[in-house]
Amino acid sequence: MIRLSIIGSGNVAQHLIQAFIKSSEIELVQVFARSEKSVSHLISVDKITSNYNELQAVDVTIISVTDASIAEISKNIAFENALVVHTSGSVAMETLDSKNRKGVFYPLQTFSKSKEIKFKYIPICIEAENLNDLQLLETVAKAISNSVYNINSEQRKALHVAAVFVSNFTNHLYQIGNEICNKNGLSFDILKPLILETANKIVSLSPIEAQTGPAKRKDTQTINAHLSFLSDENQKEIYKMLTKSIIDNGKKL
Amino acid sequence: MIRLSIIGSGNVAQHLIQAFIKSSEIELVQVFARSEKSVSHLISVDKITSNYNELQAVDVTIISVTDASIAEISKNIAFENALVVHTSGSVAMETLDSKNRKGVFYPLQTFSKSKEIKFKYIPICIEAENLNDLQLLETVAKAISNSVYNINSEQRKALHVAAVFVSNFTNHLYQIGNEICNKNGLSFDILKPLILETANKIVSLSPIEAQTGPAKRKDTQTINAHLSFLSDENQKEIYKMLTKSIIDNGKKL
Repeated sequence: MIRLSIIGSGNVAQHLIQAFIKSSEIELVQVFARSEKSVSHLISVDKITSNYNELQAVDVTIISVTDASIAEISKNIAFENALVVHTSGSVAMETLDSKNRKGVFYPLQTFSKSKEIKFKYIPICIEAENLNDLQLLETVAKAISNSVYNINSEQRKALHVAAVFVSNFTNHLYQIGNEICNKNGLSFDILKPLILETANKIVSLSPIEAQTGPAKRKDTQTINAHLSFLSDENQKEIYKMLTKSIIDNGKKL
Repeated sequence: MIRLSIIGSGNVAQHLIQAFIKSSEIELVQVFARSEKSVSHLISVDKITSNYNELQAVDVTIISVTDASIAEISKNIAFENALVVHTSGSVAMETLDSKNRKGVFYPLQTFSKSKEIKFKYIPICIEAENLNDLQLLETVAKAISNSVYNINSEQRKALHVAAVFVSNFTNHLYQIGNEICNKNGLSFDILKPLILETANKIVSLSPIEAQTGPAKRKDTQTINAHLSFLSDENQKEIYKMLTKSIIDNGKKL
């Protein structure tokens, strides 16, 4: 049994707690949370602490907090020479305090508290300073996921930027679609099968093969009709920029 | 049995042919295709014609061609006083020639030739000049789909613009993600579970509730790190514009 603790009580921390509790290979020893209430629905209260001196040295301690707090929290830890990792896509491994061995355990997914998630299908990107720790993190990751990748800090940065494009920005485009529907007395539900199929397509086709629409066809008549239909200046600008990007991309091929 | 013909042999036409052939309520009488080869793998050659004078008047004739060709093709049809509809999201019903009764049969989906699709889940937006024709189109639509909507031409235009945002533009963001992966020696496969979950989330959460990421958190440190990471000017501009749009949107709430 690998002994593991989690520092943090946000979205990612809560999903990790739920995943590790179900695993037979991991013993979740402690959770550090400033407010007991935030995690007491997930784990028994005697395992929750808000005191760094009570935090035991275990095989792996996972810091799952906002990026800006990672350095300070890793300093606050009282024990030394144990493996301490963070879960951030954009923070370098070196940001962690040097009194403990460093590593990264980055689950590449979009987490919302109210939406349950199957960790089994979430890619976990791991990084460590030495091979032993990397193997330990691999065992921990495989205990909850089928998909584990060794990714260095520079690649992880690239992955995080790419994730912002394919997830955060994509969701924002869904929201613009939702707004256009609301404004025209249409249910957003009509768009949902299209949204799901657009995502499902790239499992079997590359995004270049999957591209359709007026910009791909260089159909300037439809593009101009859409631009005169849009009254919101921000939506218009986004439409213009992404249309131009699709057209320019076609020229590169 | 409703007697139906299709004019066209592109993506949408081919998917419609496949769907109607499977339906027990529809008899697919003829397919008009300039090249017999383009549809002969789907339907017997004696039903394929490239001669407008051979095209019979049936209950419903579906014109499924590029937007720019709809008007001319509806003029070329030799018969009169039958129901002729098009499948376009952005062309007004009135564009069709007045010698036949007009209608629209718009399946809201992204079609790729090499990707099979279940029509059952595709919303079909119908419009007609009179109630009888609308009911006829409803029967035809329900023969292949569970999800049929009465949508007027103005709403259809809105829906098509919204579809460009949630599908064509979204797919382009996938492509940018793919490029960033390629450039950094990463497999695009790592991003696929994230892409699928981002789409699946909006089935149960509104896009506003589902929004995550540095722009949503107004995490300027990560935003600036991402901007200095990106070397492609076009990707940088898209990153800036969509980040600003997410932040401005947060202020409106």
